[in-house]
Amino acid sequence: MQKYTTFILAGLVIVLAAALAGTLIFMNNQPAQSRTTQPIVEIAPLEPESELWGRNFPNQYSSLLKTRNNSLDTTFGGSSAFSHLERDPRQVILFTGYPFSIDYNDDRGHEWALEDVRATKRVNEKTPGTCYSCKSSNNPGLWTEMGMEAYDKTSFSELGKHLTESIGCANCHEAGTMRLVVTNPALKEALERQGKDWTTYSRQEMRSLVCANCHVEYYFKGDGKYLTLPWDGGTKVEEMYQYYNEAGYKDWEYPEALTPTLKAQHPEYEMYTAGSTHYNAGVSCADCHMPYVREGASKYSMHDIHSPLLNPELACGQCHTDTEAVVRRVSLIQDQVYNTKVATEDAIVDAINAIKAATANAASDPDLLNQARELHRQSQYYWDFVSAENSMGFHNPEYILKVLAESTNLARQAQMLAAQAANDPSLLEIGTYYSSQETGAVLP
Amino acid sequence: MQKYTTFILAGLVIVLAAALAGTLIFMNNQPAQSRTTQPIVEIAPLEPESELWGRNFPNQYSSLLKTRNNSLDTTFGGSSAFSHLERDPRQVILFTGYPFSIDYNDDRGHEWALEDVRATKRVNEKTPGTCYSCKSSNNPGLWTEMGMEAYDKTSFSELGKHLTESIGCANCHEAGTMRLVVTNPALKEALERQGKDWTTYSRQEMRSLVCANCHVEYYFKGDGKYLTLPWDGGTKVEEMYQYYNEAGYKDWEYPEALTPTLKAQHPEYEMYTAGSTHYNAGVSCADCHMPYVREGASKYSMHDIHSPLLNPELACGQCHTDTEAVVRRVSLIQDQVYNTKVATEDAIVDAINAIKAATANAASDPDLLNQARELHRQSQYYWDFVSAENSMGFHNPEYILKVLAESTNLARQAQMLAAQAANDPSLLEIGTYYSSQETGAVLP
Repeated sequence: MQKYTTFILAGLVIVLAAALAGTLIFMNNQPAQSRTTQPIVEIAPLEPESELWGRNFPNQYSSLLKTRNNSLDTTFGGSSAFSHLERDPRQVILFTGYPFSIDYNDDRGHEWALEDVRATKRVNEKTPGTCYSCKSSNNPGLWTEMGMEAYDKTSFSELGKHLTESIGCANCHEAGTMRLVVTNPALKEALERQGKDWTTYSRQEMRSLVCANCHVEYYFKGDGKYLTLPWDGGTKVEEMYQYYNEAGYKDWEYPEALTPTLKAQHPEYEMYTAGSTHYNAGVSCADCHMPYVREGASKYSMHDIHSPLLNPELACGQCHTDTEAVVRRVSLIQDQVYNTKVATEDAIVDAINAIKAATANAASDPDLLNQARELHRQSQYYWDFVSAENSMGFHNPEYILKVLAESTNLARQAQMLAAQAANDPSLLEIGTYYSSQETGAVLP
Repeated sequence: MQKYTTFILAGLVIVLAAALAGTLIFMNNQPAQSRTTQPIVEIAPLEPESELWGRNFPNQYSSLLKTRNNSLDTTFGGSSAFSHLERDPRQVILFTGYPFSIDYNDDRGHEWALEDVRATKRVNEKTPGTCYSCKSSNNPGLWTEMGMEAYDKTSFSELGKHLTESIGCANCHEAGTMRLVVTNPALKEALERQGKDWTTYSRQEMRSLVCANCHVEYYFKGDGKYLTLPWDGGTKVEEMYQYYNEAGYKDWEYPEALTPTLKAQHPEYEMYTAGSTHYNAGVSCADCHMPYVREGASKYSMHDIHSPLLNPELACGQCHTDTEAVVRRVSLIQDQVYNTKVATEDAIVDAINAIKAATANAASDPDLLNQARELHRQSQYYWDFVSAENSMGFHNPEYILKVLAESTNLARQAQMLAAQAANDPSLLEIGTYYSSQETGAVLP
């Protein structure tokens, strides 16, 4: 009897042990945490050469190098240097009188940054060194050595002699600890003026904030061309616009319209953090643009930074299981933003034409005309805040579409004020948008 | 030795059996599937009295009855009959010449539908019976008995004698099987004209489609006031607008502006299914508005239909764990839509004023003026498609904001064309929107 019991118990043990083993195997197949390893080489503080860092972190480094070879495009962006001006000739008109009307190519991967800034036709002998601020891992060292003030005052050509590396490890990491750090003094100072101390940020917050070392709106302040983020009143478009107004700042005067115009840069961080659904759900930039991958026994964050639409299974798949459906949703959102953005451009072009004509008319009311220019300035900045941002709306669709709706309204109002200033209804011509509507008509 | 082994094995069995028991208890706490029960009373086909159905389904019925007592409001909607005209006086202007400018209260719960349609000042002796189409569970029986043509031709007061029940079980369910069904002939016919057969829809699709028995855009076609959904060319706003243009249909002529104007109804189904993120993720109307609850041993779908913002833990919590954060995200989206919608209203009011003035001016160019009216008509319909829809944008934020951006652009163009028609730049006055901007100015 006892023998019989023993057999039953032994049988049960085998069954249950097998179940336990299965569970353990399953758990072992879940993503492992990254492991701390002893460095192979010591990295000096602010070391510009990513290749040296790469000896300790070969996976991260070899994925960073992929940004040189990636050239795939998405519908609206991607990794090739296509010309925005050729794709959308309205932008030639919108940037008339400013170098962006001559040369405005899409950004390529981080490994191309230094080469591409040297190749752009926007650079000339008057270009300040400030233009190198986001292009090289030599910068953290140079900023420490020279100070940002001297760095920005040095000419582009002179400063260029000290720059040998494109964007790399030192732009976001602290040597030795590999901690994520704010390296751009302009970002540090902007946060300080907001009463914020980045050293208190969580690691997850830093996985977005280090991107703000570059992917932000900025301008060159004063004669020293001092790199400055217009964040003192906040990072929403209306707050930054108000900042520029209070500073009396313009990037250029629009020819013949005489509007003091602003160029937005690449406000990805501001756009994303303006209450977007993903941001509010705690998702960082790196979660989508640097997803974790597993290769053999290693798990690491991809440093081959590009559009998540180029590897949605990995990028979106960290949270979403229905990747294919997710990509379709992204496409639909971007199509809606694109169509709205183009309608806004048509409205601004109409406003510019009206203001130019009113300016040429000596009898125009100068106050009304200045009001028209003010609205043109605001409209164009709001539009560019969306247009220069690299996500065709996906980083924050509701906010972006609200901003575009405002921009269109402001542009039409600018046109109306110009017509009032010149007392000339013929300035109310409507460009391509109206004619593109095909919903029929009930009236003759 | 064998005794020793037996003890060890017995110990292992106890430990593993305890783990197994825990797992089973855990599994048992997961939501149970609803069970089929024998009916207590037989329900006749198309039975209008929900109280009878309620004897078989007491939980569903008692939750339906709650729609009588719920009166809580959200920021932008809810379950009380507040006046849209008092909250937003622009709408008095926008609906001038149409009964909605006299009485336009927010909808209350399903139990109030019959009482509220009889109380509205929009109803008079000329009102057709069609107005009862979405207000009573007597309808499926009456439509079968009389046919919808006769139903719609009967006067409101005459038809009213046959209606005793507010919205109830028979509006969405088939007696006996409790299957979800299309009961409104207008919906069935609209789907047929699109080549769609609702009987092939999945249950999850039906959990949205039955809402479209009422929550859709419609109009009264021809002299017979035949209830018709303008879906032949599709259910997007531009497709329905084109339908109305091809039909040469107007709801009323706007006084003094002479615009053939359209009133949108409550296009929740069209808005939600126009590629919204939730819809594309397979979420039905009922998932959020009729969440499953568990009371004792029963699990059932709440029939106390109202805004999910009034019970987000239950409504959003079926999928989202961070309910509080979700509600904040919804609020932010709705605020952005609301502000954009009000700016659109200002633009349409400006357009109306300009068209009225141009119409009063005998020298106005009639072709340009008609073009202005056409744009006013389109702009106002696009705006109302958003405004009359009960979600303040949340059902499909990107689409709604795109539509509002278009509407504002069209309204400004309408104003511009009216000024051109009258050759009078003084018609370009800009209403409250511009003055509400507070971002400063750089020009004098």
